[in-house]
Amino acid sequence: MRSRKNITGLAAAACAVMLAIGGPADAQPSDSDRLARGEAVMRTLNAGQAQPTLEALRRDFPFLADAITGYALGDVWGRPVLDHRTRQIAAVAAFAALGHRPFMKIHAGYALNLGVTPEELKEVVYLTTVHAGFPRAIEAAQTLSELFREREQAGGVK
Amino acid sequence: MRSRKNITGLAAAACAVMLAIGGPADAQPSDSDRLARGEAVMRTLNAGQAQPTLEALRRDFPFLADAITGYALGDVWGRPVLDHRTRQIAAVAAFAALGHRPFMKIHAGYALNLGVTPEELKEVVYLTTVHAGFPRAIEAAQTLSELFREREQAGGVK
Amino acid sequence: MRSRKNITGLAAAACAVMLAIGGPADAQPSDSDRLARGEAVMRTLNAGQAQPTLEALRRDFPFLADAITGYALGDVWGRPVLDHRTRQIAAVAAFAALGHRPFMKIHAGYALNLGVTPEELKEVVYLTTVHAGFPRAIEAAQTLSELFREREQAGGVK
Amino acid sequence: MRSRKNITGLAAAACAVMLAIGGPADAQPSDSDRLARGEAVMRTLNAGQAQPTLEALRRDFPFLADAITGYALGDVWGRPVLDHRTRQIAAVAAFAALGHRPFMKIHAGYALNLGVTPEELKEVVYLTTVHAGFPRAIEAAQTLSELFREREQAGGVK
Amino acid sequence: MRSRKNITGLAAAACAVMLAIGGPADAQPSDSDRLARGEAVMRTLNAGQAQPTLEALRRDFPFLADAITGYALGDVWGRPVLDHRTRQIAAVAAFAALGHRPFMKIHAGYALNLGVTPEELKEVVYLTTVHAGFPRAIEAAQTLSELFREREQAGGVK
Amino acid sequence: MRSRKNITGLAAAACAVMLAIGGPADAQPSDSDRLARGEAVMRTLNAGQAQPTLEALRRDFPFLADAITGYALGDVWGRPVLDHRTRQIAAVAAFAALGHRPFMKIHAGYALNLGVTPEELKEVVYLTTVHAGFPRAIEAAQTLSELFREREQAGGVK
Repeated sequence: MRSRKNITGLAAAACAVMLAIGGPADAQPSDSDRLARGEAVMRTLNAGQAQPTLEALRRDFPFLADAITGYALGDVWGRPVLDHRTRQIAAVAAFAALGHRPFMKIHAGYALNLGVTPEELKEVVYLTTVHAGFPRAIEAAQTLSELFREREQAGGVK
Repeated sequence: MRSRKNITGLAAAACAVMLAIGGPADAQPSDSDRLARGEAVMRTLNAGQAQPTLEALRRDFPFLADAITGYALGDVWGRPVLDHRTRQIAAVAAFAALGHRPFMKIHAGYALNLGVTPEELKEVVYLTTVHAGFPRAIEAAQTLSELFREREQAGGVK
Repeated sequence: MRSRKNITGLAAAACAVMLAIGGPADAQPSDSDRLARGEAVMRTLNAGQAQPTLEALRRDFPFLADAITGYALGDVWGRPVLDHRTRQIAAVAAFAALGHRPFMKIHAGYALNLGVTPEELKEVVYLTTVHAGFPRAIEAAQTLSELFREREQAGGVK
Repeated sequence: MRSRKNITGLAAAACAVMLAIGGPADAQPSDSDRLARGEAVMRTLNAGQAQPTLEALRRDFPFLADAITGYALGDVWGRPVLDHRTRQIAAVAAFAALGHRPFMKIHAGYALNLGVTPEELKEVVYLTTVHAGFPRAIEAAQTLSELFREREQAGGVK
Repeated sequence: MRSRKNITGLAAAACAVMLAIGGPADAQPSDSDRLARGEAVMRTLNAGQAQPTLEALRRDFPFLADAITGYALGDVWGRPVLDHRTRQIAAVAAFAALGHRPFMKIHAGYALNLGVTPEELKEVVYLTTVHAGFPRAIEAAQTLSELFREREQAGGVK
Repeated sequence: MRSRKNITGLAAAACAVMLAIGGPADAQPSDSDRLARGEAVMRTLNAGQAQPTLEALRRDFPFLADAITGYALGDVWGRPVLDHRTRQIAAVAAFAALGHRPFMKIHAGYALNLGVTPEELKEVVYLTTVHAGFPRAIEAAQTLSELFREREQAGGVK
């Protein structure tokens, strides 16, 4: 029913997506389909890698890790209509306004992976002065600078 | 203290933008340039109309109205790099997450004016379940439905 | 897009719960199972009735209504370990602290349905002075008083 | 359980303050002393009147009303060091930033009673653009305008 | 200005509770009674120990430390109707939703001291995805895992 | 695009203020006037020094640094009506209530520079228990104690 183009990353993830898409049209997706779809979305965002924050949750909170994968990544981020770039820009804007710095950093990294430019992310942060005031904007700017430095040190252009 | 030029209609707005952009490169924009640029941005977003919430502020808070026009609309929303559509989607995402319902409604209306579809706005609202939880998402959805009904009654498609 | 079974009344709800619980241990619950479980949880909380706020969302936001039913009510509120009373008290405490008044009212009503006493709810609200300050606590108290008056007028003891 | 003295009018309030202050230095203030001190503070702020929001709470939440009087008004607002004007300006700044509109209105009214000028309150609201963004500042400005109109209609200068 | 009795150990705490409760019915509790009741509540929650965060406040903020003891612990947490377990679960739910991580950790520790199980606390945290979104829930989960590790290292079962 | 004059020291700052105020009454202030006014305000607050947080922003976010200087410091903090002391007390109250600890610390330092006493700042923090609850107040108290210690170590009285 839902076709999602450009799945690059692990073969298992692609396979799982085929399973999720390929069932008979009247069948309801099972929970394992939802988890597979969420895994695939996450690897699309995260350059084919597992997400360390998510994996660290599994020891004590396997059901929360499953909710992130099945619901947040699978049901929500896996939907059509918006492209991934727009969704990540929206997430960065919301997390910056709410002061959720570690999550803003993760999703700003996803945005860069998807081709959003550093200059575009800086503009999103600048909007935060209007949405939520200067302290939130300054902290979001500091978080973005941290991310830029980390990616420069890791050898990326940013 | 500050004189604010009355600029009415899109023609004057376009003229103001030309003035704001067309000055000699080494001149600093004056405050009246900034206000003119903000006016122009606002009319671009609001289908050439004045913004009633903003105008109502002028009686008691002329300096706040000027800050909205000069800073928020002129300095921030008037910047290049991001297109207006992306900026409004970011604003809707942030205001939905923060629970700023009247402001989300205004900016969702701007987004529709700029060609963002109702379906795209619904997806932005859906993201709010992840960013800020279900109450914030449900209230944003209710706000968006109100906007859709108001625009239907005003004769628009939405 | 998604077919949602119309489940009306407590008998069908109980049936759905049995279906959700009683499947073979190695089978993954399908999305329709999750929705059925969420429906059943909601009717347990809401004295066998449909929830008007939720139903009103379906026109414009069927996927959000499904997320509330399938994820929030089914996956989260439908879990074991905590009993329903404790879960509703936790929800009232959180919504009071966050200032989510309409949601606090709904969940305080669920709590009363489950046998939590008005006096207990008042004490939860009183805690809010410590958690989040006096304005949030006063608004939560006002919301609770509104709920008590509405239920008295509807003929209940509260 | 707790008896609350009915104190009506400024004379009784002043008397209560003398009682609260004038006890022997080594005696601990009793709860009724604290309530009396809070009553006196409130009447000082509220032009000798009872506070309707507070009185409405007493039916269902007598212990919360006592906490407001004994703790918030008595222990906190009744302390020395800061003068009442400064304390109300701080309260208006904090409530504006937090979006607690009804409470901002009450305390802005107290500030006017104490001689803070409307122009000073407008400046405090303007600061909110920096502290918490433009939506919070605009709503605080709207709240302040409502208060000004109400007081004008009630025959005051503002 | 205020003398605070040094109450050490559970025996003295129990004694203080008896004093606080056992006075003649028509006497108003004095401030020293309130502080003693708060001390006793705190030691009941904290396995008979003083609370380090609270003690560290005394140097610069003795009146805030007294407010925590006299008001928050004495007046609020010391009330009847709710049992201590329920009150701590409500506090954990509220602090998780608000993102008050250090306070969530302290009160989750109190809950464990009172016999609430780690599995129950995990479920309270899971509710946070609904109340306040996934970032708040993930941070609350991380905080709870930190607490579990600290208590394991301190030799407790959790 | 925007040239920012390097203004070093109080003499130049005072000069800039004279320029900003002393222009012909019908001339609009240019952006460089606004930046100069903001610089001057900042140095008045910060004992004649540059603000390190602000300077660190310039590398990646020159337009945000300019907005802080031109808008927040120049347009907002540079206004008349309120004196600097009152404005800093309002900022400390708002930042304490919002939980913006680093910003509360900066502005509490400005307040001390302007002659607000440590005892007055402690009282502002104490108000936070009413505005926003005990966790926010406790964190604000901890932040203020950090500031006091840092200034003691730097050789100041506080």
